[in-house]
Amino acid sequence: MRIAIVGSGALGLYYGSMLHRAGMDVHFLLRSDYNTLTRHGLHVFSVNGDFHLDSINGYRNSNDIGKVDLVLVGLKTYANDVFQEIISPLVGESTKILTLQNGLGNEELLAKLFGAEKILGGIAFLCATRGEPGTLHHLAEGRIAIGAFHSSQAEILENIAAIFKTAEIPCRIVPDLRKARWEKLVWNIPFNGMCALLKLPVDRLLSSPASRGLIINIMHEVIAAANAQHLSQQIPFTLADNMVLSSEKLIGYQPSMLIDLLAGRPLELDAIFTIPLYNAEKNNIPMVRVQTLQALLRTIAPG
Amino acid sequence: MRIAIVGSGALGLYYGSMLHRAGMDVHFLLRSDYNTLTRHGLHVFSVNGDFHLDSINGYRNSNDIGKVDLVLVGLKTYANDVFQEIISPLVGESTKILTLQNGLGNEELLAKLFGAEKILGGIAFLCATRGEPGTLHHLAEGRIAIGAFHSSQAEILENIAAIFKTAEIPCRIVPDLRKARWEKLVWNIPFNGMCALLKLPVDRLLSSPASRGLIINIMHEVIAAANAQHLSQQIPFTLADNMVLSSEKLIGYQPSMLIDLLAGRPLELDAIFTIPLYNAEKNNIPMVRVQTLQALLRTIAPG
Repeated sequence: MRIAIVGSGALGLYYGSMLHRAGMDVHFLLRSDYNTLTRHGLHVFSVNGDFHLDSINGYRNSNDIGKVDLVLVGLKTYANDVFQEIISPLVGESTKILTLQNGLGNEELLAKLFGAEKILGGIAFLCATRGEPGTLHHLAEGRIAIGAFHSSQAEILENIAAIFKTAEIPCRIVPDLRKARWEKLVWNIPFNGMCALLKLPVDRLLSSPASRGLIINIMHEVIAAANAQHLSQQIPFTLADNMVLSSEKLIGYQPSMLIDLLAGRPLELDAIFTIPLYNAEKNNIPMVRVQTLQALLRTIAPG
Repeated sequence: MRIAIVGSGALGLYYGSMLHRAGMDVHFLLRSDYNTLTRHGLHVFSVNGDFHLDSINGYRNSNDIGKVDLVLVGLKTYANDVFQEIISPLVGESTKILTLQNGLGNEELLAKLFGAEKILGGIAFLCATRGEPGTLHHLAEGRIAIGAFHSSQAEILENIAAIFKTAEIPCRIVPDLRKARWEKLVWNIPFNGMCALLKLPVDRLLSSPASRGLIINIMHEVIAAANAQHLSQQIPFTLADNMVLSSEKLIGYQPSMLIDLLAGRPLELDAIFTIPLYNAEKNNIPMVRVQTLQALLRTIAPG
């Protein structure tokens, strides 16, 4: 199986390097780190054990990769307007495109461009950041949940899950991709939003009673909105307390939106805020705290 | 009329110096700037014309001032726990205490300590900041609205207004002090809160569509809460648009809460947020955006 990694940030590099290490035929579309990665390979400093890839298949242009069996999309969602340009050369008749991006709207946009039957969605539970050029720091987690976007995809999901497992990437297939995406938003909206806004790591927000209370209130807003989306099952409100408790161990952890802000990059506000807010309002569930947070973030967002 | 100025920050120094310049018998309770102010006097750089007071009556301790006819309270509300200690020595049988502090709860606390019939309230519309020790910058406005806290106070209000006017301080008497305080909160809650949170001046918030929209939504929440407080008149929702338009000229203006934050001082969250929120909830008007803003500010507040 030929695999292309599109969006070789921390997420793309991590999963691509794990697949490459396991002997898969992986091709990375690279930008800023092209020279370093193609000349010196990639050092992965991982909680599961460091490893080094002497060389990787790196490309500046997806035309040079050509058609693949699987496109793994790890682009920041604020760059989704390049989908057509950089993914089209990779797509043949039987190509599948798996987006592991944050938030909502990515599968829909890919489906519009390439056809719904080609698109799969996944949620990455991964704490990783890029270090110096040619290095990657894998700090925690790493598992993936993948799900169908179109009814035809049961078999291919099994195949992809098997490939990930072979590469020591824990992977489960979820029966309701939209529910999994909303569950991830229950975490992403308060923690990405508030950590970026206040420039504080996760544990600092949880140790202040004021922000801890606001996090739970925001989680409840998101769960109420999710439960109006006609998901296969309701999300219990107890998820909020469970997520808060399990996040306490993320000492010093900066969610991706804070990292983006500190690096002067755009923020993933459409995927994590605007589209969820739109879907919530369409079902008459206002998320007033989420709206407030979005307006504050839009005001300070770079670019 | 013997007047004591308690809380000689920008507000206390400005009104005290205007009264002193007009020949009133003004006594300042001072702390950090005691030496500079008592030795070298005060330079006021004012939009209405600069002036210098060669010497002012400065004291380190209110016992040295003794009883006065009028106490003008300009303390930051986060210092309200010193009311008893520093105001008691100033209060005789006929002393009146006029608080020009921000937000809600100040008159009530003073009334509890000194008796409601002694307490008057006022709202200062003043843009002023302290510069180097011994200097004060008066940037805009300066008018005061004062009102009765107790039914016995019509005559004394007239006297105080006349004194202010003699000192070239525009002063009007408002028939409903609580209404005037809530109207001021319609401005103070969004602008003090959001400017401090985002570390941006007023005009920058108004030039971003996201924060401008949030400001208006917050103003509407505050007006709705105010209109549930059994005021003498309803506050029209059009006040929000009028305030936003008239605030556009405040180029580079930093509200006091932003100045406090940048100086590492506590924030006036109880008076401007918590007590208004409490009063709103008591009348079943949730101010969800205001709550959200408060929680974010509590998380980053110094001290």
